[in-house]
Amino acid sequence: MPLEKLNGCELPATADFHVHLRDAEMMELVTPTIRSGGANTVYVMPNLIPPITTVQAALDYKDRLQKIEPKVNFLMSLYLHTDITAATVVEAKKAGITGIKSYPAGVTTNSSSGVIDYEQFFPIFEEMEKQDLLLNLHGESPPTPGSDVTVLNAEERFLPTLLMLHKRFPQLRIVLEHCTTRKALKAVEQCGPKVAATITAHHLFLTVDDVVGDPFCYCKPVAKTPMDRDALLRATVSGNPKYFFGTDSAPHPAIAKRGGSDGMSKAAAGVFTQPYATQIVLSALEEGIEQGVIHEDDVTEEKLRHFLSAFGRTFYQENDKTSERIVIRKGDDVVTDSLTAGAFEVVPFRRGQKTWSVKWK
Amino acid sequence: MPLEKLNGCELPATADFHVHLRDAEMMELVTPTIRSGGANTVYVMPNLIPPITTVQAALDYKDRLQKIEPKVNFLMSLYLHTDITAATVVEAKKAGITGIKSYPAGVTTNSSSGVIDYEQFFPIFEEMEKQDLLLNLHGESPPTPGSDVTVLNAEERFLPTLLMLHKRFPQLRIVLEHCTTRKALKAVEQCGPKVAATITAHHLFLTVDDVVGDPFCYCKPVAKTPMDRDALLRATVSGNPKYFFGTDSAPHPAIAKRGGSDGMSKAAAGVFTQPYATQIVLSALEEGIEQGVIHEDDVTEEKLRHFLSAFGRTFYQENDKTSERIVIRKGDDVVTDSLTAGAFEVVPFRRGQKTWSVKWK
Repeated sequence: MPLEKLNGCELPATADFHVHLRDAEMMELVTPTIRSGGANTVYVMPNLIPPITTVQAALDYKDRLQKIEPKVNFLMSLYLHTDITAATVVEAKKAGITGIKSYPAGVTTNSSSGVIDYEQFFPIFEEMEKQDLLLNLHGESPPTPGSDVTVLNAEERFLPTLLMLHKRFPQLRIVLEHCTTRKALKAVEQCGPKVAATITAHHLFLTVDDVVGDPFCYCKPVAKTPMDRDALLRATVSGNPKYFFGTDSAPHPAIAKRGGSDGMSKAAAGVFTQPYATQIVLSALEEGIEQGVIHEDDVTEEKLRHFLSAFGRTFYQENDKTSERIVIRKGDDVVTDSLTAGAFEVVPFRRGQKTWSVKWK
Repeated sequence: MPLEKLNGCELPATADFHVHLRDAEMMELVTPTIRSGGANTVYVMPNLIPPITTVQAALDYKDRLQKIEPKVNFLMSLYLHTDITAATVVEAKKAGITGIKSYPAGVTTNSSSGVIDYEQFFPIFEEMEKQDLLLNLHGESPPTPGSDVTVLNAEERFLPTLLMLHKRFPQLRIVLEHCTTRKALKAVEQCGPKVAATITAHHLFLTVDDVVGDPFCYCKPVAKTPMDRDALLRATVSGNPKYFFGTDSAPHPAIAKRGGSDGMSKAAAGVFTQPYATQIVLSALEEGIEQGVIHEDDVTEEKLRHFLSAFGRTFYQENDKTSERIVIRKGDDVVTDSLTAGAFEVVPFRRGQKTWSVKWK
């Protein structure tokens, strides 16, 4: 039984540096689950409809979130868009906005307002570098017609853009979000300390074989090969401060995952992990040990603390709320089949499966 | 408007050398759609539950099919299984059975009785070679735990087995079914004239990007990259007699494609194309021309005749029913949203989309 040694272990609260909390009813349903997943600090994605492109919209959104869950520290972001100017960046910094998220146009949920050409945003990046505002990259090349870009190589094809941006703006803090490939990890390692990467919980489990035919395992970027999955597991316990936790938890109404009301549309992309964020990482590491991908000795209290909390907080320069602690337990908790509120049903990742438990101290 | 020249063109009836007609209610629903798709000759897969491993079971199945549709020529197969002996092969030949289908264990629908070790079947293959019975290969390596085999490379990993079998049994007629990759086509070309390949209708359209998140585009083998898709389109109009049509039309109740009654299971693998078999090929070639993958001049009445009918019939030595003719028309026919019979609903590929029409002459 791997990881017995961590049973009952105390950790600082998890910080989740990539969450989708949506708005309105979905926000009401999802936001209270942040703490269930062991996190007290989250970095909130701005891809609402319409996207958050003004400081005021971000602050209003933060107010709505804090009303629902006052015990979570919500770090806010803007959506990289032609509406944003250098003046917006200055204003954002003053208002306590943490970063700006870049979505290549059309690659994922609510990315239709996304970036086509990075060069047009160079003045913005320059000001962000000056103001020390973070740039978060959804690192996938868009699937232009006639090209050979697919969900499988879109991340790899994006990496030259990452390297170009880092070279051009060496002091700009950049996060390559939700890495899914060995190549992406390698590219991040190649960069200086201003470039880091988030790793999700679900990508520590999934390969492309799980994705095909199961809409609840479908997200962007799509999970890749077993070797890529193994590389993510190893990165998680590597002790490299460039790698830290960001779930990319992305709730959709179950009906949208199942192809809409007539079951005929393509499933919405996104895997929902928020209520079990920390728990799923522990289960993934356990499975990784059982499969011989990582060694039990690599999974220590220190490694967990680093990956789930310290490395991300340090990179984000966000060290509030680190005194709150959670206790993790190996146990027979089972992931709930779905969360419902009013008309909404949302299905969590690994529904019905055994999981670790998290309690607040 | 590509392919205007083929509007109103007359062709010999299509021969579809890979169909799943199931049994009972599903068989009743699907079998009458063979002729709607322009085909009068079909090679019937044996993966019923339990699989067809005796000559009597195959002949009984043929009777059931012919009662439903007397105007179709049903070519029958057995399921490669340890129950089959050299004597079964002799008996099968005498009874007019066409071939034996090999499923690697666990790779697709109803393949749990499939092959783990090919060597144990060498005596069977030897007798098949002697009797000139066909061997049909589902060409995917099984995803053994801890290996790096995924739905993406399973076909490529199988190719050495194809080459080994051909080398060992050079006079055995082998069909590598439903090729999805350039590498598979290349391997088939590398072999002598006793080895051929079927190409489906849906793989002429799909890439992996269509598969993820859409259970109705999910089948085994999974559609691969745009370059692979392009290679299939080119092979279809290449005039190479090794390539001919086999839809692998695989009906499942819509509810099984949508994850079962609670929408929580993995989707059943299979794309249903039977009622529009010929029509979908024409639409795919049209799209291939529009995308510049193939040239309009490559799509002639002769090329269609070869791919849809003559090459397969020649390889199968099955030239009954070639005098029946169909007329194809470019038109505004629309693929139906679903076919229903009693409790069954089956959703065809490209539901709701414009299609060519086929009329019997």
